[in-house]
Amino acid sequence: MSGAVASNGDSSGESIEIVSVPIERAAVVGCGVIGAAWASRLVLNGVDVAISDPSPNAEQIVTEVLANAVAAYDDLGLPTDRQGTYRMAASIADAVADVPFVQESVPERPDIKAAVLAEIEAAASADAIIGSSTSGIKPSVMQATMTHPERLVVGHPYNPVYLLPVVEVVGGEHTTIENVRRAQGIYAGIGMKPVHVRVEIDAFVGDRLLEAVWREALWLVNDGVATTQEIDDIITHGFGLRWAQMGLFETYRVAGGAGGFRHFIEQFGPTLEWPWTKLMDTPEFTPELVDTIVEQSDAQSGMHEIRELERTRDRNVVGFLKVLEENRWGAGTTIAEQREG
Amino acid sequence: MSGAVASNGDSSGESIEIVSVPIERAAVVGCGVIGAAWASRLVLNGVDVAISDPSPNAEQIVTEVLANAVAAYDDLGLPTDRQGTYRMAASIADAVADVPFVQESVPERPDIKAAVLAEIEAAASADAIIGSSTSGIKPSVMQATMTHPERLVVGHPYNPVYLLPVVEVVGGEHTTIENVRRAQGIYAGIGMKPVHVRVEIDAFVGDRLLEAVWREALWLVNDGVATTQEIDDIITHGFGLRWAQMGLFETYRVAGGAGGFRHFIEQFGPTLEWPWTKLMDTPEFTPELVDTIVEQSDAQSGMHEIRELERTRDRNVVGFLKVLEENRWGAGTTIAEQREG
Repeated sequence: MSGAVASNGDSSGESIEIVSVPIERAAVVGCGVIGAAWASRLVLNGVDVAISDPSPNAEQIVTEVLANAVAAYDDLGLPTDRQGTYRMAASIADAVADVPFVQESVPERPDIKAAVLAEIEAAASADAIIGSSTSGIKPSVMQATMTHPERLVVGHPYNPVYLLPVVEVVGGEHTTIENVRRAQGIYAGIGMKPVHVRVEIDAFVGDRLLEAVWREALWLVNDGVATTQEIDDIITHGFGLRWAQMGLFETYRVAGGAGGFRHFIEQFGPTLEWPWTKLMDTPEFTPELVDTIVEQSDAQSGMHEIRELERTRDRNVVGFLKVLEENRWGAGTTIAEQREG
Repeated sequence: MSGAVASNGDSSGESIEIVSVPIERAAVVGCGVIGAAWASRLVLNGVDVAISDPSPNAEQIVTEVLANAVAAYDDLGLPTDRQGTYRMAASIADAVADVPFVQESVPERPDIKAAVLAEIEAAASADAIIGSSTSGIKPSVMQATMTHPERLVVGHPYNPVYLLPVVEVVGGEHTTIENVRRAQGIYAGIGMKPVHVRVEIDAFVGDRLLEAVWREALWLVNDGVATTQEIDDIITHGFGLRWAQMGLFETYRVAGGAGGFRHFIEQFGPTLEWPWTKLMDTPEFTPELVDTIVEQSDAQSGMHEIRELERTRDRNVVGFLKVLEENRWGAGTTIAEQREG
């Protein structure tokens, strides 16, 4: 397997100094939970946002998500005196005219993406950066029908977008490296850590890892090995607590002791290979499997309203970010930079 | 694929009330990082521990890991007035005689496990519970040569064992459900959340998920898509912050909104299926791939001493646990129970 299609620029993985690009206005096109959270991050970082979404619920979603975001920023002690504004635009054209940056978060269908990108391009200035929130569609696919494909990047966030700082920035074969850098600068300017994914593959980096876990978890539920609650308990009481502060590789490095990563591989490599060949196939997504998951998830979380779960999640993540900032570590360093503005 | 071999008891996944089983003495056999961390958890929860390990470094490892554990418990504000003692035993026989509980953490080789279990059984009382820290070997395999196989369980922890509360408890085909419950009670008595893995499969639950991520991450490094630093940044600044407090399923439930998990699957199911078929094969663990990982890991973490990284990790995890306990959520609820004793 080689997923490599396009590689832009710093292929060595050398660290590049990201220069923040402050913006005053932006458009958010598509305003479900992700779009609304983008709007919230932009507003709370001083940007005036025009939002376009045909759904009659869009404004309500913005109001609710922004309220959560304001509460989280208050709790985190981030300054709110540089707050921007938002307005519901009448159309995509109305939203994107005269903004230097557009974030697209419409449904994950290539035909919808193409139609929306065409509408954005018809009204936006030719050099506006367009970021797409897609979780998996390659930018080269999306930019194939564009007039100015050189300014399209994927800017893939993690929800809650207003709190989790990472964004994966992926250029397609027509994206210029200058525009990748500009996009990184714009994301850095709203408190984010923009990681440039230099080789274009389906699902990029984070969702590759999440897909792998999801596939495996489906097997465990399908085979009756564990319930959704048990799987989640093992994550949240186990390695999830590690990954909020050290990733896969750094955690394993620590496990390997003073011998570094080579020692870890020598010590655990053979063990880690054992079950591999058995984990390759996938469970069929049958109605029975869906029913099982739905029932187990209801038993696990059905007693909580979603908005209540969101507030709990935010309160927990805010607490973690405070800890990390105090310890000058991991995502806390990004928050410290955001605080300085 | 079906990994099912043996299923013990509560196959429905119904929650069982775990009754703590307090113990006064225990043996730790095998004292690398994991064994030493078990010894530390036992001592700090009031148990007198006899430790057996032929390595001349074993006592030093215990001293260092216990110092980290004491610092973490102080920081967490857990009472230390019920602290137990530890001693380095002259032999396995010396360590395990007259203890109700033995935790085995010797290297992950079936032949070594078998030899050590034989030595333990030769000296331990017939009803002492034996827990194995193995990450992947099935208890049915380990108990095949045992005299009293009915008391062997896997008790698979996550490092740092003295802080992360979860332990996967897995019985083999000869383990009685009474002994699984006793083992769960013993682990609960030292502040842990013992999750009974009811179906015996290679690598159990958490390591299945970790294997999947590890395999995928190796591809990303192998194909030059991302460096170890970039992958870790995406974890620690993204979904890692979520998983310290809500697992895979609860997080996705929240993403699906008020429609519950069925809505999530309807909304994202097809997208989630897209890249699956491309993620099935595995990279070969070539010397070149090992070199690449080692170099990238050195660049990422080589400036920190391992003990320093361990202290940083513990300080971060302690902070997270305090946040979760204050919010009465996730692993914080287990810590609250541990605090009450």
